[in-house]
Amino acid sequence: MRHDEIPNSAVHRLSIYLRHLEAIHVLQQRTISSKQLGQALSYSDAQVRKDLAYFGQFGHPGVGYRVEDMIRELRSILGTDKTWNVLLVGAGNLGRALMTYRGFLRKGFRLAAVFDADTAKHGRGFGELEIQPVSAIAHAVETLQIRMAMIAVPPESAQQVADMLVAAKVRGILNFAAVSLVVPPETYVQSVDLAMQLEQLSFRMNLGQIAGTTP
Amino acid sequence: MRHDEIPNSAVHRLSIYLRHLEAIHVLQQRTISSKQLGQALSYSDAQVRKDLAYFGQFGHPGVGYRVEDMIRELRSILGTDKTWNVLLVGAGNLGRALMTYRGFLRKGFRLAAVFDADTAKHGRGFGELEIQPVSAIAHAVETLQIRMAMIAVPPESAQQVADMLVAAKVRGILNFAAVSLVVPPETYVQSVDLAMQLEQLSFRMNLGQIAGTTP
Repeated sequence: MRHDEIPNSAVHRLSIYLRHLEAIHVLQQRTISSKQLGQALSYSDAQVRKDLAYFGQFGHPGVGYRVEDMIRELRSILGTDKTWNVLLVGAGNLGRALMTYRGFLRKGFRLAAVFDADTAKHGRGFGELEIQPVSAIAHAVETLQIRMAMIAVPPESAQQVADMLVAAKVRGILNFAAVSLVVPPETYVQSVDLAMQLEQLSFRMNLGQIAGTTP
Repeated sequence: MRHDEIPNSAVHRLSIYLRHLEAIHVLQQRTISSKQLGQALSYSDAQVRKDLAYFGQFGHPGVGYRVEDMIRELRSILGTDKTWNVLLVGAGNLGRALMTYRGFLRKGFRLAAVFDADTAKHGRGFGELEIQPVSAIAHAVETLQIRMAMIAVPPESAQQVADMLVAAKVRGILNFAAVSLVVPPETYVQSVDLAMQLEQLSFRMNLGQIAGTTP
């Protein structure tokens, strides 16, 4: 099994397992079985074992997984055992919300530079950073060794920003603009589609009504 | 198959199918096969057919799916064939970003009321709305017939807000606070964990390195 053949859904569950393990580690629980982990998160134990099996041997027969070891291994697999420098394009409301989002640094992501197309914003403070023109992206990527970026600009500018990031050799993009980005295969885009999240919610809320009309 | 047994991942893919169908509809494509739909989105045609089979009979043998019909059916399944009134708790940077997010209304979600705990903000304008105290939530939910809410408050206040929403009989919550919410089973929470999204990105960016050390 090549690592790039691992389904997104399995990688997503690794994040969910890690959240739960971190929570029980704080409560000083030292071991957990695949069954316990699955039950706590509404997955089958077979699903848990299958997801973990992509990454080799975890756990000890009859003992289950050692929580501390597993947290360390999952962080290593997910690449959050180190700190990533991340740049942000778009210093509007969403950009400011992302800057103050407390979850990022705790998970190993450090906002290292911020850019905006609006010349009126250039040089202004943005937390501990200063807003730079987008023409400075390539230089910042090189000097700060940045490989990851967040796009928080209006949809009509997002592709242009993505092209600049790709040209600057940014390899991973978290895209908040409600538009699909076209990038070369060696660049990975993770899109946060907020309307899609609300759609999932409305589906679940429709359930009662739909189920009532189904034999 | 009961509708509440349909996996989240399948519902998520319905949203993705719908996005693609809407895009090709604009380009005046009238029919599509499960194979074409799958190929465009990197799923197998078996996966596409299985996901749709949860909801009954789609498509015509030898013709495939009629794009327009399928858009209408998927919207009906996802509950976005109507407009939902949504309330927002938290009028900070993230709240403002959500207010101006253009994807929402297009997908059938209308921001109907906004609340904040900060008394200094009460009565201030927020787009076309006025920021209200959180004590007014129950009244607004009843008069505006709101069943869906977004939480964009700091993590330490999120559970308290969730409790108020549940008490006011809000049935669906989109949670942006980086904390797990405890709600009764009849309330559905969809969490947007931004750090988790970055984690997925760092996993994919680690791939080259990991793959290189794997036999």
